[in-house]
Amino acid sequence: MCNLWGFQMEKIKIGIIGAGGYGGCGAIELFYSHPNAEIRALIDKQDVDKSISDLYPHLKGFCDLPLMAPDDPDCPEDLDVVFFATPDGVGQKEAPLWLDKGVKVIDFSGDFRFNDLETYMGYADRIGRSQGHVSPKLLPRSVYGLAELHRKEIASSDLVGNPGCFAVSCILGLSPAIDSMLIEPESIICDAKTGVSGAGKTPNATFHYPARYESMNAYKISGHQHVYEIERELGILGGQEIKITFTPHVVPLCRGILTTIYAQLRGGQDLKGVEEAYRAFYKDDLFVRIFGPLEPQGSVNVRGSNFCNISLNVDERTGRLIVVSLIDNLVKGQAGSAVQNMNIMFGLEEASGLLHPGVYP
Amino acid sequence: MCNLWGFQMEKIKIGIIGAGGYGGCGAIELFYSHPNAEIRALIDKQDVDKSISDLYPHLKGFCDLPLMAPDDPDCPEDLDVVFFATPDGVGQKEAPLWLDKGVKVIDFSGDFRFNDLETYMGYADRIGRSQGHVSPKLLPRSVYGLAELHRKEIASSDLVGNPGCFAVSCILGLSPAIDSMLIEPESIICDAKTGVSGAGKTPNATFHYPARYESMNAYKISGHQHVYEIERELGILGGQEIKITFTPHVVPLCRGILTTIYAQLRGGQDLKGVEEAYRAFYKDDLFVRIFGPLEPQGSVNVRGSNFCNISLNVDERTGRLIVVSLIDNLVKGQAGSAVQNMNIMFGLEEASGLLHPGVYP
Amino acid sequence: MCNLWGFQMEKIKIGIIGAGGYGGCGAIELFYSHPNAEIRALIDKQDVDKSISDLYPHLKGFCDLPLMAPDDPDCPEDLDVVFFATPDGVGQKEAPLWLDKGVKVIDFSGDFRFNDLETYMGYADRIGRSQGHVSPKLLPRSVYGLAELHRKEIASSDLVGNPGCFAVSCILGLSPAIDSMLIEPESIICDAKTGVSGAGKTPNATFHYPARYESMNAYKISGHQHVYEIERELGILGGQEIKITFTPHVVPLCRGILTTIYAQLRGGQDLKGVEEAYRAFYKDDLFVRIFGPLEPQGSVNVRGSNFCNISLNVDERTGRLIVVSLIDNLVKGQAGSAVQNMNIMFGLEEASGLLHPGVYP
Amino acid sequence: MCNLWGFQMEKIKIGIIGAGGYGGCGAIELFYSHPNAEIRALIDKQDVDKSISDLYPHLKGFCDLPLMAPDDPDCPEDLDVVFFATPDGVGQKEAPLWLDKGVKVIDFSGDFRFNDLETYMGYADRIGRSQGHVSPKLLPRSVYGLAELHRKEIASSDLVGNPGCFAVSCILGLSPAIDSMLIEPESIICDAKTGVSGAGKTPNATFHYPARYESMNAYKISGHQHVYEIERELGILGGQEIKITFTPHVVPLCRGILTTIYAQLRGGQDLKGVEEAYRAFYKDDLFVRIFGPLEPQGSVNVRGSNFCNISLNVDERTGRLIVVSLIDNLVKGQAGSAVQNMNIMFGLEEASGLLHPGVYP
Repeated sequence: MCNLWGFQMEKIKIGIIGAGGYGGCGAIELFYSHPNAEIRALIDKQDVDKSISDLYPHLKGFCDLPLMAPDDPDCPEDLDVVFFATPDGVGQKEAPLWLDKGVKVIDFSGDFRFNDLETYMGYADRIGRSQGHVSPKLLPRSVYGLAELHRKEIASSDLVGNPGCFAVSCILGLSPAIDSMLIEPESIICDAKTGVSGAGKTPNATFHYPARYESMNAYKISGHQHVYEIERELGILGGQEIKITFTPHVVPLCRGILTTIYAQLRGGQDLKGVEEAYRAFYKDDLFVRIFGPLEPQGSVNVRGSNFCNISLNVDERTGRLIVVSLIDNLVKGQAGSAVQNMNIMFGLEEASGLLHPGVYP
Repeated sequence: MCNLWGFQMEKIKIGIIGAGGYGGCGAIELFYSHPNAEIRALIDKQDVDKSISDLYPHLKGFCDLPLMAPDDPDCPEDLDVVFFATPDGVGQKEAPLWLDKGVKVIDFSGDFRFNDLETYMGYADRIGRSQGHVSPKLLPRSVYGLAELHRKEIASSDLVGNPGCFAVSCILGLSPAIDSMLIEPESIICDAKTGVSGAGKTPNATFHYPARYESMNAYKISGHQHVYEIERELGILGGQEIKITFTPHVVPLCRGILTTIYAQLRGGQDLKGVEEAYRAFYKDDLFVRIFGPLEPQGSVNVRGSNFCNISLNVDERTGRLIVVSLIDNLVKGQAGSAVQNMNIMFGLEEASGLLHPGVYP
Repeated sequence: MCNLWGFQMEKIKIGIIGAGGYGGCGAIELFYSHPNAEIRALIDKQDVDKSISDLYPHLKGFCDLPLMAPDDPDCPEDLDVVFFATPDGVGQKEAPLWLDKGVKVIDFSGDFRFNDLETYMGYADRIGRSQGHVSPKLLPRSVYGLAELHRKEIASSDLVGNPGCFAVSCILGLSPAIDSMLIEPESIICDAKTGVSGAGKTPNATFHYPARYESMNAYKISGHQHVYEIERELGILGGQEIKITFTPHVVPLCRGILTTIYAQLRGGQDLKGVEEAYRAFYKDDLFVRIFGPLEPQGSVNVRGSNFCNISLNVDERTGRLIVVSLIDNLVKGQAGSAVQNMNIMFGLEEASGLLHPGVYP
Repeated sequence: MCNLWGFQMEKIKIGIIGAGGYGGCGAIELFYSHPNAEIRALIDKQDVDKSISDLYPHLKGFCDLPLMAPDDPDCPEDLDVVFFATPDGVGQKEAPLWLDKGVKVIDFSGDFRFNDLETYMGYADRIGRSQGHVSPKLLPRSVYGLAELHRKEIASSDLVGNPGCFAVSCILGLSPAIDSMLIEPESIICDAKTGVSGAGKTPNATFHYPARYESMNAYKISGHQHVYEIERELGILGGQEIKITFTPHVVPLCRGILTTIYAQLRGGQDLKGVEEAYRAFYKDDLFVRIFGPLEPQGSVNVRGSNFCNISLNVDERTGRLIVVSLIDNLVKGQAGSAVQNMNIMFGLEEASGLLHPGVYP
């Protein structure tokens, strides 16, 4: 195995905590074809001692490691990085143990998406987490794990807060417009449609097949917790406080987030300038693809891949920019971004293990 | 059979032109349980002489009439009303023949949604219909067939242009806000998600099962033809020109339109006032149900029924009204509205034949 | 309201126990358009005091009764019939209380599908119910509620065991062949495919949307409990013990059971004779429709209706009869059959409240 | 690149004819991660000069080759192998041109699945191909491309007839039972359920989303053309003529064939012996996985991968073997088998480019 500088090096040794969920499964799938990494430990509170391929039979022969309890003394100590594919609250409690051993940490929850306590507490309010943060001293050390905005900080960090799936979709769809001041910041509306897999593996009444196969709905109208990180990141980029309206919807498909973003263009802006700004902003970002208004934009085109497809449109009649932003919520919206972050943190090719087109139909 | 005044009368004799499409099928299903109407003729260019229950085997035993050619000399003359479940251009050509015989006409296309030629020509531009209108003299006689706005005109009309499915969803979702001047008219954005049945029965690559089951997309961004009638109706109601941004999306389900409507509240408006205005506006409208922000709003709740469910929300942080409007595109969005219009035109109970809850799950 | 003899009579007063499940919901939908019956009490252990239309919002305005606890003292006493839309074990415990008050009982579970204890105990073994039957004295009084086989007994019964959904599909598909001795009884194989709604409303991992939308599987291979009643009914009809192979499968749709039935034709039998036998057997059965080999047989053609569509085919090369039997598992396979039984028990038109074609697409 | 003997060799140069269909797309996806092969030409009658990534936007950046017309003079001459991902009749006409140039051929249709004219003519009858075979002299040179049965012949062949998707599922599910004489050959019944993608990319009324999302059906009962190759292969293996009953069904999912196979066990056979026979038969076959009766068998477990999962069950009550055989119709049922065949024909690792677990959920 070679890194960017051509040295032979050993494979990165990986642990996944919360390995039994969709986030863990997605990471395992990606690591199977990653040339420079190998999974050494799968950790979960549930299904301990079962093989991961009993939970996910498609993995049989590809990854048959057993799930270990979080406190299993046999868990390997010499890992290079652990992924917390766990809900809010787990990573902030357990990350210090790993960091102290020199193991890098990538957390899938909101635990490390905000690098100061005050900001975190605003987020904690939104999710009803009254007890605050368990490891507040770690927050300044953490980096928001969206490579397209924070590649450099990620490269030198050992603690990355992987972004929320809706946040990836909205932030990538809006950043160039904010950065180049193309739009009125107070006019931003994000209307997001997500597949069901975003809600995870645990069954509930809302996602029971008969209740869902022929139904769509809005939810958490103007109250979704991802708004907080979207506004935070856009605010930093734009140098001013930004408040958006964000409405998530669930539609009956499995993978994909399509966010339709509306914002008032500033005077003098047109489609041509918008396209140029977006292409310039993402010129070094392999996983962001910019499309014009007439190009194909079905969510299936990013299914199973780490790409974000962005389509740019201008409604001439009302002077609005309309951006359609597409990702696979389980790849670019979760495990794919996490692997991308890991690659950056270890000086590997950023796309290592991520160059799959997905499967169609 | 009784009308509203208690007289015994014969059943209304119905013809359906374009009976073989989803619109025709939907009307046939509704008329089966309509106490005051019976289908006498099914007319279509395709599948002539086949029984409708060969095309739609679920109708076997309920309606087995053959499809007649449009020029079939055996077509009954003494119909009371014909439904044109046909694309743009058919009704405007053939409606005069029926009207001249004293037969009322309800057209499902855009042919009679605009009651003056100039307005129609604006619409014709949008759909690429350069040849104009074949029967322009009929336009002033036509009424826009949305009962909640035009009940009285429909009652005295013999020519009704049934509204577009997206238009029903948007206009019902916005009318009270426009009527009571609750919102800034230039701030309106309608983000619509439709099931696949809205595209009709004819197969094409976009709606082929493997291409669609796991894909969603936006289309005709800022260019959908239904915008025209939405703006027209809202403009009349608001007494001023109104321009909206409207983005339709297709998601992988069969029936349902969910439109999320965003608009800036005018100063001093709040959720309570909005709810009151909506309830007052629709106080006589059986088929519009108003919900507050926390109430359930899955599209399956209107599937197979003629209801429009409207949920009202205010984003306090940005001062925006967010309305979620739900219909079944094939019922309230098409055949159900048509039957409702017919009921009004013939002095029947407006809900006659339409009081079905639908089927769940 | 009129019964078959033209007398005016009051509406039948109905109670539904276990009203909050899919079986209860299906019955409520059917009773809304039933001319001779009305629901007086909805009873459930869960969601007590909630309106049924809070659980099933599509029922709002159609049925808003509250769910009462099973022991609610306010439950009306003067019901005419109660439906136990409950799992095994509930009806056998509570039915005596109702029967003693002169209330007829229709039970959706296996509790009253076998009219002697020995036979029931064989079934109890299959479902792991070691404690036996709570009310064994009622068993001889009970009737197997498949109208096409037991119309007369049902008419004079006050205790009906509504058949299992797979059993309806298999028994209707096989009865004429057994009755006319067209096939070798030991050669019968039933390969059944069911939609997900058959598993009921309670969410679980197997029917979680992401796990199910793109997966099909066989289950309980040669061990499903419905085999027992199928063999029982066919055995009675054929006058000999009959053992079948039955394999259920779940496929990703909501409503429908398609059972493909294979059996060796006896010498001298051909398609023509088979068709004649089937048509003769079901000549008085409105809800069974016989089709030849080339006619359309999608499960959607019975969706939402009480029909069983049977298609007859002969594989000339191997001498096998191949019957395709289609029902909606929630209608003819459950609530529809129950209403049909009630109609028979009360001397009403058998099809009363059941003549709906369903909705397409 | 290395072959099995460790020599460096150039990448195999591939052409795909009929590249625009699902079969072509599937091959392109597989070749992207194939270490020893690269696509040099994509040929199709339709969409000539378009990039394949315009047809399949998920391929953008992975394969952007243009589609060339079949007679394009610029088509590279120095290919090593061409895949005919085309319907019956194309390969038999054009294959000689390629073979004469020393290019190996793998054909996805029935054109080269039978290595003598008489047998082919029986197949031609089934598909209504009255004109016979265009290149009958090639037939003895062709090999049936199911690696698990014909690995050696494939290795030395330059003309392979890739098997039909249903045939792969049935033959793999039955071969050990036939080979070890475990079952009565005249008792075999194959009940197959396929996803919609098996019907290809061309839209039609049967696979239009609204007509399909909630419907399943049997078709071509006892008349499907794949029966012919199944009986042919099993007959060779069993050393006797074998006639089976085969019923295909379409269910509403995209990828997957689940075939439930029924056959009478011969005296003295039991589950243990059956399992041993199956494991022994497939001991060298990486892509066939044998499961016992209780192990998980959802079709999603093979989705996107080249595996065939076989579950073995015995119905003790009737003495029947019940085999559940699962494949992805587009991978092991088509493009995956083709790549597997190519690997064998060129002396590569048989699994080269095929070791993907697929993606879940």
